[in-house]
Amino acid sequence: MDKEITSTSNPLVKQLRALVSSKKARQESERFLVEGWRGIQTLIDHPGKQYCIERLVLAEKWAGGTLPGSIETIRMPDHVFDTISDVRNAQGILAEVRHIPKHTELPESGRLLLLDNVRDPGNFGTLIRSAVGAGFDRILLYGTCVEVFNPKVIRSSMGTFASVDIQQTDPETLTDLKKQGYQLYATTGLEGANLYETVFGSKTILAVGSEANGLSDEILTLATQKITIPLTDACESLNAAVAGSICMFQIAQASRKP
Amino acid sequence: MDKEITSTSNPLVKQLRALVSSKKARQESERFLVEGWRGIQTLIDHPGKQYCIERLVLAEKWAGGTLPGSIETIRMPDHVFDTISDVRNAQGILAEVRHIPKHTELPESGRLLLLDNVRDPGNFGTLIRSAVGAGFDRILLYGTCVEVFNPKVIRSSMGTFASVDIQQTDPETLTDLKKQGYQLYATTGLEGANLYETVFGSKTILAVGSEANGLSDEILTLATQKITIPLTDACESLNAAVAGSICMFQIAQASRKP
Repeated sequence: MDKEITSTSNPLVKQLRALVSSKKARQESERFLVEGWRGIQTLIDHPGKQYCIERLVLAEKWAGGTLPGSIETIRMPDHVFDTISDVRNAQGILAEVRHIPKHTELPESGRLLLLDNVRDPGNFGTLIRSAVGAGFDRILLYGTCVEVFNPKVIRSSMGTFASVDIQQTDPETLTDLKKQGYQLYATTGLEGANLYETVFGSKTILAVGSEANGLSDEILTLATQKITIPLTDACESLNAAVAGSICMFQIAQASRKP
Repeated sequence: MDKEITSTSNPLVKQLRALVSSKKARQESERFLVEGWRGIQTLIDHPGKQYCIERLVLAEKWAGGTLPGSIETIRMPDHVFDTISDVRNAQGILAEVRHIPKHTELPESGRLLLLDNVRDPGNFGTLIRSAVGAGFDRILLYGTCVEVFNPKVIRSSMGTFASVDIQQTDPETLTDLKKQGYQLYATTGLEGANLYETVFGSKTILAVGSEANGLSDEILTLATQKITIPLTDACESLNAAVAGSICMFQIAQASRKP
């Protein structure tokens, strides 16, 4: 069923705008927005268990893909849509998504990505996308990472955020995982074992730090082994999302599940 | 020798501002800016043959690294510096760099990265950084890529742009390279050979397209082989800079120079 909104001061428009700009609004309502067709399509195809598309919001200019008839659709003029949209040259489609937090036990084996104080939303979202692409089973957040439902994180993840559980962790949990046989690999720019000469088992945690500060002392202390991507002299380091992604895909290759 | 500038209307300040905002100003003067210490440090350590740091510009707040005494240094109050700077929370250091275009023949063998209409400056700069890190010998630009000296490209490359020749190419040149024995690999999301099962020789061109449009028909027609990074079902594609970087590092591994 389609509804139509014509005013920028409509309460729903105000509420949607708050979901873009305010972390507090996202947390209190357990809702956030996904903008752009590719991300929404991935979410429709792979909704996961923790997310539900509540409604689609379309601008007049929207001219793309077939929409599922079962989801409520709101239509509005371009100038009203643009007061909500967070992107330049918006396609004119966004989804309001509800987060249904579900407690899930950590897997007894598998590949886990640990993000250590990653504050750049683009890198964070890109790492989620790569983790899902490489078949990682869980994303653990350590310290103060950027909020998962930040619009830039969600956009960079291209709708893949719904396909992997993402949860906060702490030193005690990581110590428990190590007792269960998990190896914690710390990616560092220097002095680690060569990534390509490392053998990875069926219980692997890959820790990636922020580009500005690298890994925290706590994670370096907990690490089983440091690993390093071999680089030429003229390049001191890689982009954090690139480095993490190269490691994840190499781990997926070097520890193929049967 | 240090100079001091105190006014935002100083002609040098205006000229520096133009180098941030205007492609025309960059092209006419053959100059551009590198902002931030990590990029400048890399450029000082690895200046390449085509670049020369003309001067360093420091804000009062600058409180970092040792600067080479041989380079002219301009100091200015923070509020003047901030009218030039392109970044939030600037460190307070930038370098004015001259580009000395040098014609260089294409190498007879090696690894070349071909960027096909890549318009996102962050992805472009990140791909330069990864290409240098993976030891690629040249970057070829096809179609309309973003300008190399765009401030966001330069910033994302983290000073590595000086260590690799970057030049425009065309179908005739690529056809010539193929006649010389180069293989042109086209990265595609679907239907290519598995990246990890592909053997790469000593004459390799890797073509990477834009995230929005992929590779152009001309490059796909010229390609010797399509290659694909294997992904799980829940992830349709990777970020373009991540995908290109994964391929470059795998090629470097799969065709180690003796």
